[in-house]
Amino acid sequence: MQLIETIRKKKSFLCVGLDSDPKLLPAHLAGEKDAIFQFNKAIIDATAPYAIAYKPNTAFYEAEGAAGWEQLEATVAYIKKNYPECFVIADAKRGDIGNTAQRYAKAFFERMDCDAVTLAPYMGKDSIAPFLAYENKYAIVLALTSNPSAEELETQALANGGQLYEQVIRQCLSYEGSERIMFVVGATRPEKLADIRQLAPESFFLVPGVGAQGGTVEEVAKYGLNKDCGLLVNSSRGIIFASKGEDFAEAAGREARILAEKMAAYL
Amino acid sequence: MQLIETIRKKKSFLCVGLDSDPKLLPAHLAGEKDAIFQFNKAIIDATAPYAIAYKPNTAFYEAEGAAGWEQLEATVAYIKKNYPECFVIADAKRGDIGNTAQRYAKAFFERMDCDAVTLAPYMGKDSIAPFLAYENKYAIVLALTSNPSAEELETQALANGGQLYEQVIRQCLSYEGSERIMFVVGATRPEKLADIRQLAPESFFLVPGVGAQGGTVEEVAKYGLNKDCGLLVNSSRGIIFASKGEDFAEAAGREARILAEKMAAYL
Repeated sequence: MQLIETIRKKKSFLCVGLDSDPKLLPAHLAGEKDAIFQFNKAIIDATAPYAIAYKPNTAFYEAEGAAGWEQLEATVAYIKKNYPECFVIADAKRGDIGNTAQRYAKAFFERMDCDAVTLAPYMGKDSIAPFLAYENKYAIVLALTSNPSAEELETQALANGGQLYEQVIRQCLSYEGSERIMFVVGATRPEKLADIRQLAPESFFLVPGVGAQGGTVEEVAKYGLNKDCGLLVNSSRGIIFASKGEDFAEAAGREARILAEKMAAYL
Repeated sequence: MQLIETIRKKKSFLCVGLDSDPKLLPAHLAGEKDAIFQFNKAIIDATAPYAIAYKPNTAFYEAEGAAGWEQLEATVAYIKKNYPECFVIADAKRGDIGNTAQRYAKAFFERMDCDAVTLAPYMGKDSIAPFLAYENKYAIVLALTSNPSAEELETQALANGGQLYEQVIRQCLSYEGSERIMFVVGATRPEKLADIRQLAPESFFLVPGVGAQGGTVEEVAKYGLNKDCGLLVNSSRGIIFASKGEDFAEAAGREARILAEKMAAYL
């Protein structure tokens, strides 16, 4: 698996979240027609020595309409061309079934060459399997998130035992192609991370919530690492908006390096 | 509520699903640059006397990249301009939180003037509330869907009683602005529809699964109607692909009329 090789080579399990909200870009880019792409390009160049994955969240691109969508496609193409060792995640949290799910898979795996898409599990296997049908592509399924209202459903106790997010993981691990399923697990619940690691010892976890949301690399590594690393720790705002001046890319590179250096200690 | 007025005026609760897969369009449109939009326009004009809502599923547009996104925006604009009485649903099944959810809301409620977006409930209120923050806009939350793997999670029995989809509905009804939440309930489970109507007597239900998937207007009406109608029954392929010849729009109008006439008997 190329991702594991990249992790070993770069001594990092850092995923940079490209939540490139146009309202938060440095002022000197504001006039540019493709400001989001220009911003992403500079961020990617500055952070690529330390990042093993990039994760654009589709919401920030869709909010700009077709022009935003074009810049999302351009961003993915730029990474795949210049940093082919990096793993690209469309953070789309899609969740539809059958031929509709197939169209989403086409959008992210064929039109764009993303390596993975984040998916919502509510409708079950019908919404995951169409993505697993692509060889060498990955489905990253929401399991336990770090937002306050996660407890409304995700941690509901089931009559048959366990909590809902555990059922999500168990079900996913029973699917054909489950070796290409990863799970989203929030960094702000490190004690849960240990339990989830027991439930899915082989799986990769995409862990948001480090930095701005309060999780730490230390805790995530302590509870989440497996023999292949098994972690993609994401930071978005803490890296890409580290500075809003003309030194934004340099500042992003610096923040990425700091996180990657912490990670190296565990690899 | 304008939707209720439109239902009474047109004597219909038909929603036409614009699942406009370019591969399935009539051959004579295939060469057109904006074939999807041209197709939708003809379908909308032919079905507008019978339809009270339109529901483009975003997957079919995203799969065509920026050009597809433009045609989605053009389709929504066309409906709002020419048939302002119709309710437009972005069937996007989005599910993200906080500022990300806000960007999705911007995409569908500000850039486009959709009246509603379908949403996944897994992450709880944090993924619904940003949409309810828009006055006069609606969130349509997945509750009980009709796909085979719905039983993996949706119908799981909870330790506190009831099934997961019931917990989704209960939670949603507790949110501020819950009078603007609708629920997706599959037509292929009519007996469940009666239970769900008891749980959410005032809410509108978006009911897919009539036609191609085997549900009937009769059963849905019998178990799902409330005093304000409370139903949006969707048909997609059965209407828009009723003919793949040059008479596709006429055929779509005919199928829509047949469904609307069945519905009129219940209003």
